[in-house]
Amino acid sequence: MNSKVGVLGGGQLGRMLVEAANRLNIQVNILDAQNAPAKQISNHPGHIEGSFKDAAAIEKLAKTCDVVTVEIEHVDADVLAEISTSVKVEPSPKTLQIIKDKYAQKVHLQKFGIPTAESVEVTGTDEASQITELEAIGGKIGYPFMLKSKTEAYDGKGNYPVKSAEELKPAVNALGKGSRPLYAEKWANFTKELAVMVVKTKDGVLAYPTVETVHEDSICKLVFAPARVPEGIREKAEELARKTIAAFDGKGVFGVEMFLLDDGELLINEIAPRPHNSGHYTIEACPLSQYDAHLRAILDLPIPVESLKMREPAIMLNILGGQTPDSHIKVAEVALSNPRTSVHLYGKGEARKGRKMGHLTVTAPTMAEAEKHITPLIEAVDAQKGVETKSILSAPKGSPEVAVICGSDSDLPVLKAGFEILEKLQIPYYCGVVSAHRTPDRMVEFAKAAKSKGFKVIIAAAGGAAHLPGMTASDTSLPVIGVPVKASSLDGWDSVVSMTQMPRGTPVATVGVNNSTNAALLAARILGVSDAAIQQRVRDFAKNNEKEVLAKNARLEEIGPLAYLCKD
Amino acid sequence: MNSKVGVLGGGQLGRMLVEAANRLNIQVNILDAQNAPAKQISNHPGHIEGSFKDAAAIEKLAKTCDVVTVEIEHVDADVLAEISTSVKVEPSPKTLQIIKDKYAQKVHLQKFGIPTAESVEVTGTDEASQITELEAIGGKIGYPFMLKSKTEAYDGKGNYPVKSAEELKPAVNALGKGSRPLYAEKWANFTKELAVMVVKTKDGVLAYPTVETVHEDSICKLVFAPARVPEGIREKAEELARKTIAAFDGKGVFGVEMFLLDDGELLINEIAPRPHNSGHYTIEACPLSQYDAHLRAILDLPIPVESLKMREPAIMLNILGGQTPDSHIKVAEVALSNPRTSVHLYGKGEARKGRKMGHLTVTAPTMAEAEKHITPLIEAVDAQKGVETKSILSAPKGSPEVAVICGSDSDLPVLKAGFEILEKLQIPYYCGVVSAHRTPDRMVEFAKAAKSKGFKVIIAAAGGAAHLPGMTASDTSLPVIGVPVKASSLDGWDSVVSMTQMPRGTPVATVGVNNSTNAALLAARILGVSDAAIQQRVRDFAKNNEKEVLAKNARLEEIGPLAYLCKD
Repeated sequence: MNSKVGVLGGGQLGRMLVEAANRLNIQVNILDAQNAPAKQISNHPGHIEGSFKDAAAIEKLAKTCDVVTVEIEHVDADVLAEISTSVKVEPSPKTLQIIKDKYAQKVHLQKFGIPTAESVEVTGTDEASQITELEAIGGKIGYPFMLKSKTEAYDGKGNYPVKSAEELKPAVNALGKGSRPLYAEKWANFTKELAVMVVKTKDGVLAYPTVETVHEDSICKLVFAPARVPEGIREKAEELARKTIAAFDGKGVFGVEMFLLDDGELLINEIAPRPHNSGHYTIEACPLSQYDAHLRAILDLPIPVESLKMREPAIMLNILGGQTPDSHIKVAEVALSNPRTSVHLYGKGEARKGRKMGHLTVTAPTMAEAEKHITPLIEAVDAQKGVETKSILSAPKGSPEVAVICGSDSDLPVLKAGFEILEKLQIPYYCGVVSAHRTPDRMVEFAKAAKSKGFKVIIAAAGGAAHLPGMTASDTSLPVIGVPVKASSLDGWDSVVSMTQMPRGTPVATVGVNNSTNAALLAARILGVSDAAIQQRVRDFAKNNEKEVLAKNARLEEIGPLAYLCKD
Repeated sequence: MNSKVGVLGGGQLGRMLVEAANRLNIQVNILDAQNAPAKQISNHPGHIEGSFKDAAAIEKLAKTCDVVTVEIEHVDADVLAEISTSVKVEPSPKTLQIIKDKYAQKVHLQKFGIPTAESVEVTGTDEASQITELEAIGGKIGYPFMLKSKTEAYDGKGNYPVKSAEELKPAVNALGKGSRPLYAEKWANFTKELAVMVVKTKDGVLAYPTVETVHEDSICKLVFAPARVPEGIREKAEELARKTIAAFDGKGVFGVEMFLLDDGELLINEIAPRPHNSGHYTIEACPLSQYDAHLRAILDLPIPVESLKMREPAIMLNILGGQTPDSHIKVAEVALSNPRTSVHLYGKGEARKGRKMGHLTVTAPTMAEAEKHITPLIEAVDAQKGVETKSILSAPKGSPEVAVICGSDSDLPVLKAGFEILEKLQIPYYCGVVSAHRTPDRMVEFAKAAKSKGFKVIIAAAGGAAHLPGMTASDTSLPVIGVPVKASSLDGWDSVVSMTQMPRGTPVATVGVNNSTNAALLAARILGVSDAAIQQRVRDFAKNNEKEVLAKNARLEEIGPLAYLCKD
């Protein structure tokens, strides 16, 4: 913990790395311009003034520290290779060399069997030959495709979506008129963009949870953590991200961006060999931030794997420069009034349009609540930008935590009172017909997937033999509440017995015959164990019932029972 | 948000204030020695080198900023009063003047009707007269009492516990031999020390949750947040703390330390007009830290009251200097391996014995879990200090989240299988007899207090008319699971009906007759909604049951049913 760290680049990523280092009292020496964001919060004589692309400056930095790392990949990897004989460089210069060239990155990934979009190199070095080549490539991989600069590309700069052969000339024109090395990438028809922050240590490859990124004008705007996709896809993405980074040398954190396709398949889009915008949320949402993790990884300090898990769902919103020089301050001022938002401003002076000036992170007990809190903040960012806000909600009513299933649609009238209670207590719910005997496969599938769909409690209503609650409970670890429905015979006794008398090992929480009110209230109490807002609403509901009864009694005492009975 | 803040003092409190200001890109100018901890993480030419007790230096600082505040109360309040005509000073110089003199503080509090320990001024200014006075005081307020220096007292320095008249001479000797102004304080027979961080803004007085502080050698060692006392006492302490700080002028955060006496009464011990050691936990545990809150309060920025609530329980442990210069680094290295611990080192150079070198904060979903994580870290601190560790656990088995109650001890055999399940799933539980009909008052009291005692689920077993689960559910918002117990008549039907057929509004989750196994498993599923570890154990339990049944079937298929039936 007495090592000194040198960093090429002192932007916002460097600044947040310094913030993590400050807490551990680890000295970080920044190579960048004099008042770079990272230098502003680190007061010692060890910083180097200059460009992180300047060989002499890099060599000077190397002499001041024990390990050199980067906050940007557009550095001179050859110089890093040279200095790596005298100082540790993490991640390895070879890794930086491969990753900074996006085409080399793709070729490398394919060598390791990592799925990526089909990429074709453009070998020509003048405008005319590049266009000719691209005509052939367009014919092969189809339109639209993405024309990309191999190097120096970030935040959408260096990318050009080519919709047809007519656009080849303007595309090549925009990307250096033949002077820059290019490649073409087959269009990925993705449904969502996902990202995973991966930590490579001396001992192994760890992953943070999979997040969902939303881009606007090719710049990251929002990050939803965890991604609002089924748990199975999140797990697959984490596994793919770990496998991807295992293919590279060196230590530190890596951002792995990927496409989720229609069919559930994942393609790697791009890798960043450093902390990444999609990992900002870890500062508030995880015990260990991506910046802490990067420091620890390059210094061989311990990283307990559980410290990469999230405490709460989070949403990150970039504060991009708007139409005025103080647009970021205006957004921050709105955010200060939100109880669940952390505000980060980077110290970049006046806002320039589209520049990353800061970010906001909302954390909340549920994603639905986080979405509610972030919405007015997105509006504030969009207002500064002068654009209209699109809804980001995963579902109009929020992500339901209660699933209400019934054996037949004829049970729905019995459930109506329960739905009304759930709405009154502002608990979003799903409702569907699942029959134990007529759709046994659907029942098993539903029960097995319930947890990964985000449900926390299941209410199952059934009449007669009423196997639905018990069978559902057999295929999930969630609490299942059974509502016995009075059928044509036996007055509901059949269902009460079928639900209460489950064998030891598989409980069903049985409520009264036809009493969906109590099923809903019980679900609310269960959610209330970990959701103080819901628990409060349950208390308010009871208080209200008490008041109603007391009011009726006051009336009864006042006018006497006979008048009370005649009151209508 | 463009204001500049000046701070008298640049120790660890100033450093953490700067950390909060850095995130908002607010410039903080520190008045302290050149390499003071707070200056190390703030790189700009606005700092002032000098002592925060030096009038000229304070005047110089005032010229560089829009608002002046303090991280220590032992400052020259008269100079602050002078500069307050040209620059804002928060909290007000008058408040600092009162609080820096502990006796004046007590007199001020008494004027506002705030309960404090009886305090008697020592007016003598030489050793002999102070001792004579104290003999009379000792006779009046009794021994032991606390002899205190009015000013310049902190971390136990300036305090002397006087056990008998014989100790008066050494006490006065230790506290300045007559040269310092002293006062005597009646001994408070406290059971716990509590503290509340209070935020005074332009609009009102807000409070963070009540915490419990544990001192060793008169220095704060541990902070448990929230305090491990009943909710009612926590609420009372917050109210008292708000009332106390309402008696002072000015804006900013204040630390309010108090004693909890045997009879549940609270006495104010001391006030700090600044961020405080007992509020460090807010950095990780609350959306808004005490440092954020202090900045926002003195700059009139918004403070949403919900942002002072805790996300998770937390425990803070000070890293005090041990027997070697690197003792704090050794403790930090141990802490890095704990997944729930944040490490803070203050940049104070080599450790001196008893000096605050840094702190650790553990956050966890439950206090019991936080206690488990902090224990080895306390051992690490104590090992560096060369002392033995005392247990800090609130209960040997951790704080139970499940309460199992039954109407009679004759129901216990029925519950045995349930207890075994809870133990197997490592779920701590409380068990007690609560009879609806024979101890109705106890039942109401138990149900009403259940939530504040930390219970999350109640299992209630009863036979016959079996009113216990339903009546308990009427007085709590927690989920209540009912176990119908088979009594001498009606085969258990009586209890099944009494539990399932609760009126709409008050649910009881009924399981099968005598089936405490399922009651315990249902409780585990409910806790599993917000506790991934328990949910995993529920899944493992089901998996194990599945394996057992499959093994039995394999045996049956192998040897046939007749042999199987004869197998014993």
